[in-house]
Amino acid sequence: MSSFWGNQLHISIFGESHGKGIGVVVDSPPPGIKLDIDAIRAFMLRRAPGRTPWSTPRKEEDTPEILSGFYHECTTGTPLTAVIRNSDTHSSDYGNLVQVPRPGHGDLTGSIRYKGFNDIRGGGHFSGRLTAPLCFAGAVSLQILEKQGIQIYARIKEIAGIEDVPLDPARPPMQELSQLRLKSFPTLDDSAGSSMIDAVEKARMELDSVGGIVECFITGLPAGIGDPMFGGLEPRLASMLYAIPAVKALSFGSGFDICRRRGSENNDSPFYSDEGGQRHITYKTNHSGGVDGGISNGMPVVFQLGIKPTPSISLEQDSIRLSDKTDAKLVIKGRHDPCIVPRAVPVAEAAAAIVILDSLMGSGWFGGRNA
Amino acid sequence: MSSFWGNQLHISIFGESHGKGIGVVVDSPPPGIKLDIDAIRAFMLRRAPGRTPWSTPRKEEDTPEILSGFYHECTTGTPLTAVIRNSDTHSSDYGNLVQVPRPGHGDLTGSIRYKGFNDIRGGGHFSGRLTAPLCFAGAVSLQILEKQGIQIYARIKEIAGIEDVPLDPARPPMQELSQLRLKSFPTLDDSAGSSMIDAVEKARMELDSVGGIVECFITGLPAGIGDPMFGGLEPRLASMLYAIPAVKALSFGSGFDICRRRGSENNDSPFYSDEGGQRHITYKTNHSGGVDGGISNGMPVVFQLGIKPTPSISLEQDSIRLSDKTDAKLVIKGRHDPCIVPRAVPVAEAAAAIVILDSLMGSGWFGGRNA
Amino acid sequence: MSSFWGNQLHISIFGESHGKGIGVVVDSPPPGIKLDIDAIRAFMLRRAPGRTPWSTPRKEEDTPEILSGFYHECTTGTPLTAVIRNSDTHSSDYGNLVQVPRPGHGDLTGSIRYKGFNDIRGGGHFSGRLTAPLCFAGAVSLQILEKQGIQIYARIKEIAGIEDVPLDPARPPMQELSQLRLKSFPTLDDSAGSSMIDAVEKARMELDSVGGIVECFITGLPAGIGDPMFGGLEPRLASMLYAIPAVKALSFGSGFDICRRRGSENNDSPFYSDEGGQRHITYKTNHSGGVDGGISNGMPVVFQLGIKPTPSISLEQDSIRLSDKTDAKLVIKGRHDPCIVPRAVPVAEAAAAIVILDSLMGSGWFGGRNA
Amino acid sequence: MSSFWGNQLHISIFGESHGKGIGVVVDSPPPGIKLDIDAIRAFMLRRAPGRTPWSTPRKEEDTPEILSGFYHECTTGTPLTAVIRNSDTHSSDYGNLVQVPRPGHGDLTGSIRYKGFNDIRGGGHFSGRLTAPLCFAGAVSLQILEKQGIQIYARIKEIAGIEDVPLDPARPPMQELSQLRLKSFPTLDDSAGSSMIDAVEKARMELDSVGGIVECFITGLPAGIGDPMFGGLEPRLASMLYAIPAVKALSFGSGFDICRRRGSENNDSPFYSDEGGQRHITYKTNHSGGVDGGISNGMPVVFQLGIKPTPSISLEQDSIRLSDKTDAKLVIKGRHDPCIVPRAVPVAEAAAAIVILDSLMGSGWFGGRNA
Repeated sequence: MSSFWGNQLHISIFGESHGKGIGVVVDSPPPGIKLDIDAIRAFMLRRAPGRTPWSTPRKEEDTPEILSGFYHECTTGTPLTAVIRNSDTHSSDYGNLVQVPRPGHGDLTGSIRYKGFNDIRGGGHFSGRLTAPLCFAGAVSLQILEKQGIQIYARIKEIAGIEDVPLDPARPPMQELSQLRLKSFPTLDDSAGSSMIDAVEKARMELDSVGGIVECFITGLPAGIGDPMFGGLEPRLASMLYAIPAVKALSFGSGFDICRRRGSENNDSPFYSDEGGQRHITYKTNHSGGVDGGISNGMPVVFQLGIKPTPSISLEQDSIRLSDKTDAKLVIKGRHDPCIVPRAVPVAEAAAAIVILDSLMGSGWFGGRNA
Repeated sequence: MSSFWGNQLHISIFGESHGKGIGVVVDSPPPGIKLDIDAIRAFMLRRAPGRTPWSTPRKEEDTPEILSGFYHECTTGTPLTAVIRNSDTHSSDYGNLVQVPRPGHGDLTGSIRYKGFNDIRGGGHFSGRLTAPLCFAGAVSLQILEKQGIQIYARIKEIAGIEDVPLDPARPPMQELSQLRLKSFPTLDDSAGSSMIDAVEKARMELDSVGGIVECFITGLPAGIGDPMFGGLEPRLASMLYAIPAVKALSFGSGFDICRRRGSENNDSPFYSDEGGQRHITYKTNHSGGVDGGISNGMPVVFQLGIKPTPSISLEQDSIRLSDKTDAKLVIKGRHDPCIVPRAVPVAEAAAAIVILDSLMGSGWFGGRNA
Repeated sequence: MSSFWGNQLHISIFGESHGKGIGVVVDSPPPGIKLDIDAIRAFMLRRAPGRTPWSTPRKEEDTPEILSGFYHECTTGTPLTAVIRNSDTHSSDYGNLVQVPRPGHGDLTGSIRYKGFNDIRGGGHFSGRLTAPLCFAGAVSLQILEKQGIQIYARIKEIAGIEDVPLDPARPPMQELSQLRLKSFPTLDDSAGSSMIDAVEKARMELDSVGGIVECFITGLPAGIGDPMFGGLEPRLASMLYAIPAVKALSFGSGFDICRRRGSENNDSPFYSDEGGQRHITYKTNHSGGVDGGISNGMPVVFQLGIKPTPSISLEQDSIRLSDKTDAKLVIKGRHDPCIVPRAVPVAEAAAAIVILDSLMGSGWFGGRNA
Repeated sequence: MSSFWGNQLHISIFGESHGKGIGVVVDSPPPGIKLDIDAIRAFMLRRAPGRTPWSTPRKEEDTPEILSGFYHECTTGTPLTAVIRNSDTHSSDYGNLVQVPRPGHGDLTGSIRYKGFNDIRGGGHFSGRLTAPLCFAGAVSLQILEKQGIQIYARIKEIAGIEDVPLDPARPPMQELSQLRLKSFPTLDDSAGSSMIDAVEKARMELDSVGGIVECFITGLPAGIGDPMFGGLEPRLASMLYAIPAVKALSFGSGFDICRRRGSENNDSPFYSDEGGQRHITYKTNHSGGVDGGISNGMPVVFQLGIKPTPSISLEQDSIRLSDKTDAKLVIKGRHDPCIVPRAVPVAEAAAAIVILDSLMGSGWFGGRNA
């Protein structure tokens, strides 16, 4: 009981890194939504490995086969299922037991949890590869949201301590951010991006890895979506974002900075604007990240995800040998990313899209008397 | 659909700040657990208002009346319910509509969400007062966990930029932390605490407020509790912690710092220890906050909660008047805390306890063949 | 984890028969629905004991106190909570253990399940008294549904083998059925009702009890509500109706009779009708009970509930004495209904109303773009 | 939100009758359970079409491909997924709209629910074919239960009014019932079975269909499994059994017969037995079907499922043409079973097994301190 999520839009993710395949059941998107399969594939390619120097050379086509819920190019309203076959697996038989668990991974904890029966090849069900079906579900959700005027874009905010340009959470440049989907290294400031790439490459050469921060912006969400307490947008987003491997920190709006502010500085005051022709409520600042009392206030929903440095590194590490209960040295041979942050960018967008779509559906957005 | 949470241990919270009462149904703790009602009350008093200069002078006895699930001093195994009557409410009739919403609160978003029908007196269901029943459920959970050797202590880590002593997440001083329950201002370093109190008092005199960070430590949790993906300890803790009003950031272990580290620095390596007589696996460091792959690794589970400055301040603020769609000035008259952080300390412990108990129950901890 | 139910409308029931009180949290009805509290009380009185010769003489006012979610005579949209105090309890201390469990009750199974810690006085959380908060939630749901043109009426179909008039599930006489709410013994045929009362009275005089069947009709539900598979109206109704104590059988439409029919007799054929001015789809027959593929077809939703004879009887019965593991004779002294069927009529309506409201909310009925 | 079910063992079913494939995610069986794949296939073949004169000639191999959660012949503890490819589909393009809906099917209600976008070929997601993945999940659950000493066998109790031998729910002949798995027409009384086959054949020749009743027996379940109210075994079994297409009635133990009994006749009295060497509680009768207060009492859990006659018949039927809003005649050309009851027998066993396994897991059966 671990790998499903959702209230109105329910996803169930399955698979292991080196098993036959991975996939997701999405139960169920609203019916009659035309899906652009090429756009879904393009979205998933942003996450796929093997395309850049800073990602693992494992090559996976990651082509989702849609098994159900899609007919005449539209969602049917019944469960939408996609399966991705694993192909480029290099798992000389690991046997059935972890011998020397990799630090920073779920090797040891998973082995304890499952009494040694889980498939530990390539991380098994704990592998970052399981974000591929999450991206499928997210790409579908994004397309549905875009038809409702809701847009979600993320970027690399920071890698190895090098920061992209700071952005005002009240006025994110969505047009520029949208262009990042075309870049393999999605920063707004190319020179910062270039420095980050250098830092990643340096870490790789030194058989090490680096971490960073992804920042995500959601615009077009009207005020009034979400619920108080456990149904709030923050707890619901967090319940999914923290399921992304390597995420160890999450903040909204101005994040931990607000802890050092005074209320008079931090409060976002509403005002009436006539911009666009119709009098409406808006805010000058957006320290809250677009959510008050768990409910959207009409401003961009903004969050930052702290991503740890890839735990799989080529440097020799200390670990243990379970079979004879002794300490041991570990050199990881497999393929791995020296920095997972660029590939986490589409995953953050995907996760956010699923949560927002679920919240919209929970508010009856796609329903009504003729449902 | 907002105010319930849980898989195996299910809580349902209800009430409004100025209504008849607030409370919680806990469905259901394991049967036959002897509860110390005085200790529950003492725990709840740590959160209760009106006891210190830095909390709202609203005085509430906050005495929970247990309506069900408790018999012969023990849990029965069927739903445990507590109701707390509201007494010291000063709600000259607000009418049924928000006129000038308070910035940083759920006044405006709640009003949009509920079409103006929610009870907005004192924040209604959005009020921080709803953490009182959460503390009841948490105090019960804590007592159950303590009998299993699991301890949960939180502290003020930082207020207004002033920091308490840094702690190694691998070796938190649980004995000292446990003594903080007796202090009205729970910092380890009294002189830092004193500076924080000064900063809070200064903010109060200036009709303003300050924020801060709470840090929480869970020890005694064995390795192997939790699940991969959405069932992980981090997403599950986050799904509850972000429901606490004023929480805007959350991190585990070394938090956002890990984003600037290399993998070789950040990975926690396991080793065998014979300390205590029995060979067991432990770790030198605990940057991960005790969770790998969503599952506990036997080290302390450690997290930091970023708390925003209390949005209710006495300084005049900009807002809007909804009735005539004009901008307006707002001076909040009610009673409020210049800093909510000290009262958030027991709330963090309570929330963590509920999540950990639910996770233990989900792992079959209290069950077995004779269940 | 036992006493909560629901997807979009979530109810959490608590309490024990002889504890301080019982109640329910309803999280949450749509906001802004004006509730008629007198009508709720009148509805609940139909279930309340002590009003007729065929019900237990235990007198309970059963007045619900609404603690939250109700403001200015309307639902707020946040959790609606009602508590009913237990008053007329005659529980000379039972001690903490079942000694001689009552056959046909949860005394023994509950004691095993909860290791002897459950409150067994008067049946504790297993008591039929727990249907009082269900009726509160149901009465609220019924009022909301009635404003949407949906009506739910049940009747006694049969007691002790004596049947009320058979009704065509395609054309139930809702006007006549609505009048049954005013009768303490709700049958359409007064003479059948009179015979049933005689049979109940005869059983009571002979220190015994009788069972029967309740039939319930839901009209005004448009076609298209519900889902395939586990989200179907039948599984969802069944998941609640089988939670009513003493229910041991449930059927829809023509019930078990259809098992003996041919498809050509049993299929309900649609046709177009111009009755009422607008061309619409309807059906001549309604063997299916208004549900095809789990989804309403616009015809009345009809079901029958088989209620067992009250297990508490005054006749001496065989049982066991747990303390010394011997067989024992049991004479039940307490107060009990010789026939629970009349009081089950409003409970069936209440349960059905909650499920239908949840299903409507799940279809986005109360939502829409401005939600 | 329709096709997933479960608390501790969670299943998510997907697919359409004539789409690429159908399947199920089971999240997750306990780890380390050795599965006999041949036995799973054999179990599923009992449900598969095309093997007997009374089932549709559609031939489907129905071979499940296990994509995840199975490694070294054992469950891993992470999601177990099986996909069944659709092969023998004869769907000359139906277009995207139901034109003349089949009476008794979800064609019309599904079309309304999904605004015409659902895949209606062969019934789509509403097809009885979706019970194939349910049987996969059930076959796995059965193997796990059998290792715990729990057995589940169903039989044809009645077809077309012809009854198999009556069985005492207190003492079902499990040995004989187990042999029914080898029979294509699972009745205990071969002569009754033969008459039933004749009745089915007669209906088929007359282009019609017949219904019947399946009865299921669960033995070996210890007392104390289940919960009061909505967590009871009856509501939980019902929530799954009513999801089986064509089920319109369900009863436990002595079913609707108990409605005509007196309490003194119907109550099952416990007594102490020394049979088998150890003093234990048992019952002479089992009118309750092994469940008191929602919780197992140690006697066999027994239920009856009322199955309607197959709605797809070859006789001309009345229906409507949606395109021009006129009444129309319908002759169904496709392949269909003249009686679905024999194929419902393994489906009932499968559904029961999933529910019982989920309930055992919820009671912590597979857990404990070393989990």
